[in-house]
Amino acid sequence: MKRIAVLTSGGDCSGMNATIRAVVRSGLCAGLDVVGIKKGYRGLIDRDYFMMNTKSVSNTLQRGGTFLQSARCKEMMETAGQDVAANNLKGMGVEGLVVIGGDGSMRGAKTLMDRGIKVIGIPASIDNDIPFTDMSLGVDTALNNIIYAVDCLKDTASSHDRAFIVEVMGRNCGYLTLVASIACGAEHALIPEVPYNIGDICENLRKRYREGRDNSIIMVAEGVASAQEISEQIKHHIRFESRIMVLGHYQRGGSPTSFDRLLGSRFGQGSVEALLNGESGKMVGLSGNHLQFTEFDKIFNAPMRPLNENMVKLAHKLDI
Amino acid sequence: MKRIAVLTSGGDCSGMNATIRAVVRSGLCAGLDVVGIKKGYRGLIDRDYFMMNTKSVSNTLQRGGTFLQSARCKEMMETAGQDVAANNLKGMGVEGLVVIGGDGSMRGAKTLMDRGIKVIGIPASIDNDIPFTDMSLGVDTALNNIIYAVDCLKDTASSHDRAFIVEVMGRNCGYLTLVASIACGAEHALIPEVPYNIGDICENLRKRYREGRDNSIIMVAEGVASAQEISEQIKHHIRFESRIMVLGHYQRGGSPTSFDRLLGSRFGQGSVEALLNGESGKMVGLSGNHLQFTEFDKIFNAPMRPLNENMVKLAHKLDI
Amino acid sequence: MKRIAVLTSGGDCSGMNATIRAVVRSGLCAGLDVVGIKKGYRGLIDRDYFMMNTKSVSNTLQRGGTFLQSARCKEMMETAGQDVAANNLKGMGVEGLVVIGGDGSMRGAKTLMDRGIKVIGIPASIDNDIPFTDMSLGVDTALNNIIYAVDCLKDTASSHDRAFIVEVMGRNCGYLTLVASIACGAEHALIPEVPYNIGDICENLRKRYREGRDNSIIMVAEGVASAQEISEQIKHHIRFESRIMVLGHYQRGGSPTSFDRLLGSRFGQGSVEALLNGESGKMVGLSGNHLQFTEFDKIFNAPMRPLNENMVKLAHKLDI
Amino acid sequence: MKRIAVLTSGGDCSGMNATIRAVVRSGLCAGLDVVGIKKGYRGLIDRDYFMMNTKSVSNTLQRGGTFLQSARCKEMMETAGQDVAANNLKGMGVEGLVVIGGDGSMRGAKTLMDRGIKVIGIPASIDNDIPFTDMSLGVDTALNNIIYAVDCLKDTASSHDRAFIVEVMGRNCGYLTLVASIACGAEHALIPEVPYNIGDICENLRKRYREGRDNSIIMVAEGVASAQEISEQIKHHIRFESRIMVLGHYQRGGSPTSFDRLLGSRFGQGSVEALLNGESGKMVGLSGNHLQFTEFDKIFNAPMRPLNENMVKLAHKLDI
Repeated sequence: MKRIAVLTSGGDCSGMNATIRAVVRSGLCAGLDVVGIKKGYRGLIDRDYFMMNTKSVSNTLQRGGTFLQSARCKEMMETAGQDVAANNLKGMGVEGLVVIGGDGSMRGAKTLMDRGIKVIGIPASIDNDIPFTDMSLGVDTALNNIIYAVDCLKDTASSHDRAFIVEVMGRNCGYLTLVASIACGAEHALIPEVPYNIGDICENLRKRYREGRDNSIIMVAEGVASAQEISEQIKHHIRFESRIMVLGHYQRGGSPTSFDRLLGSRFGQGSVEALLNGESGKMVGLSGNHLQFTEFDKIFNAPMRPLNENMVKLAHKLDI
Repeated sequence: MKRIAVLTSGGDCSGMNATIRAVVRSGLCAGLDVVGIKKGYRGLIDRDYFMMNTKSVSNTLQRGGTFLQSARCKEMMETAGQDVAANNLKGMGVEGLVVIGGDGSMRGAKTLMDRGIKVIGIPASIDNDIPFTDMSLGVDTALNNIIYAVDCLKDTASSHDRAFIVEVMGRNCGYLTLVASIACGAEHALIPEVPYNIGDICENLRKRYREGRDNSIIMVAEGVASAQEISEQIKHHIRFESRIMVLGHYQRGGSPTSFDRLLGSRFGQGSVEALLNGESGKMVGLSGNHLQFTEFDKIFNAPMRPLNENMVKLAHKLDI
Repeated sequence: MKRIAVLTSGGDCSGMNATIRAVVRSGLCAGLDVVGIKKGYRGLIDRDYFMMNTKSVSNTLQRGGTFLQSARCKEMMETAGQDVAANNLKGMGVEGLVVIGGDGSMRGAKTLMDRGIKVIGIPASIDNDIPFTDMSLGVDTALNNIIYAVDCLKDTASSHDRAFIVEVMGRNCGYLTLVASIACGAEHALIPEVPYNIGDICENLRKRYREGRDNSIIMVAEGVASAQEISEQIKHHIRFESRIMVLGHYQRGGSPTSFDRLLGSRFGQGSVEALLNGESGKMVGLSGNHLQFTEFDKIFNAPMRPLNENMVKLAHKLDI
Repeated sequence: MKRIAVLTSGGDCSGMNATIRAVVRSGLCAGLDVVGIKKGYRGLIDRDYFMMNTKSVSNTLQRGGTFLQSARCKEMMETAGQDVAANNLKGMGVEGLVVIGGDGSMRGAKTLMDRGIKVIGIPASIDNDIPFTDMSLGVDTALNNIIYAVDCLKDTASSHDRAFIVEVMGRNCGYLTLVASIACGAEHALIPEVPYNIGDICENLRKRYREGRDNSIIMVAEGVASAQEISEQIKHHIRFESRIMVLGHYQRGGSPTSFDRLLGSRFGQGSVEALLNGESGKMVGLSGNHLQFTEFDKIFNAPMRPLNENMVKLAHKLDI
């Protein structure tokens, strides 16, 4: 293998730049050329790419987002587009490709593997919904962004004895919401995996009110309901006013934490090593302290990453 | 004067604890007793107060919000409630009162002055809409909270070439929005003091798009419109999708900045000194590098603090 | 079991408060009394303790350090003191004790176990040198403190083309230094586990200089040498001036990260559960995603936690 | 005027990039060419410069340090070097120059004015020792860096009842130390402007110790003594052990605060406007809420910026 390429696809997250940097530096260190593809699969089809060197990645480790950028690409959903993408890679002499992104990005990578390109996927998704890895890139930074914002809200909540409903990212997966609830000392966590009962929540709010504690933080995953909806349900049940906070895209960005910089560095270096070892069609993941590689098909056929039972139990024991 | 009291009223902000601390420490230093009143005027009417000492304020300087808490108090709007409040102060032997809060809090303080209590007001309002002070307490921390969040959003905005509409606090006053726009390098700032033209904004978005720059940050004061409304107007005009972020109460809290800790310390110490000098019915304010004291009536009759012309001009020169 | 106690011992770290909180809340949730012991073993001997309730731990999760405090205690090194400590616990009716601290703290706990108290240890040490746990409490926060400071230094380093020698905590264990070096993109990491050659470092500095890159970050664990010593060695070899930064106790404190809040919550809850299950004389640890319990004797007899081979390899591949 | 240039000189600080950006954007907005000079006067002599456009300054506002870099330049101390610098500017057709830096940088600028170049200086110095401006660029960010670090130290100080001696930048000027002491709630501030008495400090430490408060923060400006020296003096007097923390270059960097981004933007835009108005040989400064321009000679002949009397008084009243 002489030449590899790297792209970021899907929603951006903090740690992508650290990952790109590790791909480039370990690629160069192994004597490979490394091609940077801009705007994900879009750049691959539009031939928007450039040769990378050490300077290309200097001063990027500490930046949020992805300097290679990401974009939607409908063409990659169809055979014709996939052919173009694979041919462009071959035209450049690229033998191996590292794709940093979520589930959809891996599916795109799979179509390129079917056309003879060696591919390794790196899981990036702040929802932490990708199976076969303990943590995806960007999750730890997102959690720290969330707790910083909720710590701020708690200042106001305790100054005014108010309840806040905080809407957290997570369409099908409650990981962010559950862990952030534990880390913030929230009173309730509403997650897709566990049905909620608005009556119980209202009863608890009333109980706290009777005890002289009106300030509460209720965290809700966007996949369950909007903060606005929960606020209205509570008002409807017990005439209790609450404030809402939608954390939104604020969760994605910012300088990556130490964990995400390290994780990205490990994923990036491990992916290049896997390509050099002839691996293909696999996603790298974190299992305990070790990297593991799982075949794309196994990932596509797996149910969503289940919630850690211990976390749910922990939340209960801490009275969330 | 032997005994003074202190309370926080209205919306909380970062720096209130530093202010309370300075009142307590300079009061004790001058040989005064200092009474802490809980939950603003509500605690004054409900006799919810306690004697403060150095320990009462230890480890508070760096905390957001107000540990004396704040609450609404309808009774203070009426003569009967004002009588109760004044009598409670007199019953405790309190001769001087420091009120930390906004315009409405000063009006409450005025009614106590009319009943023989010496009062000094300290301006606290993250909107920076109180006249006769260059800066109110909490503004600097709010600005830094805003720029932290917008820096995060910009990571995503530049990774995906997206436009974000960011809704900032400020009902009648565009200070926060205008200054944050300059400090964040936003593309547009919509403020109550200056009418906006959605057509111009759309034209600029289009121009940037043609130049290959799709990522834009548009900041809007809540008094102008909601982020949602602006996003819909843009979509209606030019079919351009934008994301929204409502910063909400996140802006209020968090550990106060150096500026707010210092400002609160100066305001607190200055207020105690003014009471000792026999002053009453005045609000302390910052004028350049000096503290100034302005009579309540002058404040109540003044138009809202006008926007600094130089800032508006600066924004234009920087192409916002 | 009706009554348990908790203390923090040894050097403080961020996450201790989250741990105490979890011990208290899960203890109360299981119907236990929970006694808080102040200043570690010192308070146990001096009978400096109090009954804890939910309010005792409210608003502590986000604070650095330990509100139960920690102190040295020579008496606990001797049989007489150990007797007093055990008798005091028995006198209060305490059957189980949770000790949060490092290696020395566990040894103290062992002596109490020998006197009939059930004890569980929780590893807290920013050096991450305790075996039988992937991560100790406080490590993740320390890492993030370090990278924040080094990111700041890099601004100056790249503005002036300067080299900085950064001294990091870690007497026998290079974990913090190695991981921070990867996360900060440092040029060199000097750790106790790997001998360094000042000639190689100087050669590399020269090479970078010739390439027009004078700015370098060299991170050194305190167990290897002081930053001052390394700076002088470099000056002696190649007349090259470098600046030094000793991060010191700044590394220990600050609001804990999401990871440390979660880890502390898991450790605390798990320890109470273990006591309820009749376990004793064990330390809880993190193994991958699971809690594991290891007997004290096994810990005392183990060699220090070895450095993760993969990290060292990763550092090499990234050219550190 | 058709073409201007900008350079940063002396010690770097946060906010320099915001200033450069404002010079470039308001220059372009006024139809001027703007030349960026690298590495201060060194780049001017070595002809290391380039034409700047909007893209040159995009994404720089939030970065610490100076992307134009700074370096020492002995040649600029001598007539020959000054001639080269002036001729290089004239050779490029540069009529106006904006110099961002400290006192020494203004002196360099003066020599260029004497050779027919219009020059405006912008005060940048985290010491805040430059007269004729209330605040220099970088001071507010430095203060916030300091309080963040000291807040961390206080976690450890209060966990262990320890005293810390914190060494702060400031050779002749105690501004940073004094303000940070107020903002951090330190017990003592040692500054060049006020002689200290180690006996008094020791007496106070003893008094606190007798009251059960062993944790103290003593802040010392580097111009007074090193933290190490003060620690040894205390030990010598009363056998009291204290820890030291030298904040060093950590104070300089990091993402600039809102204040420094705004100040830099105002200074930058104001300087370009002044050049367009035919001004020269002046430094822009902040006076209250307004920009003022002061002739270089007046600055060179002025005594150092005196300490604000009110701050010293405030510190006393707060018992520092």
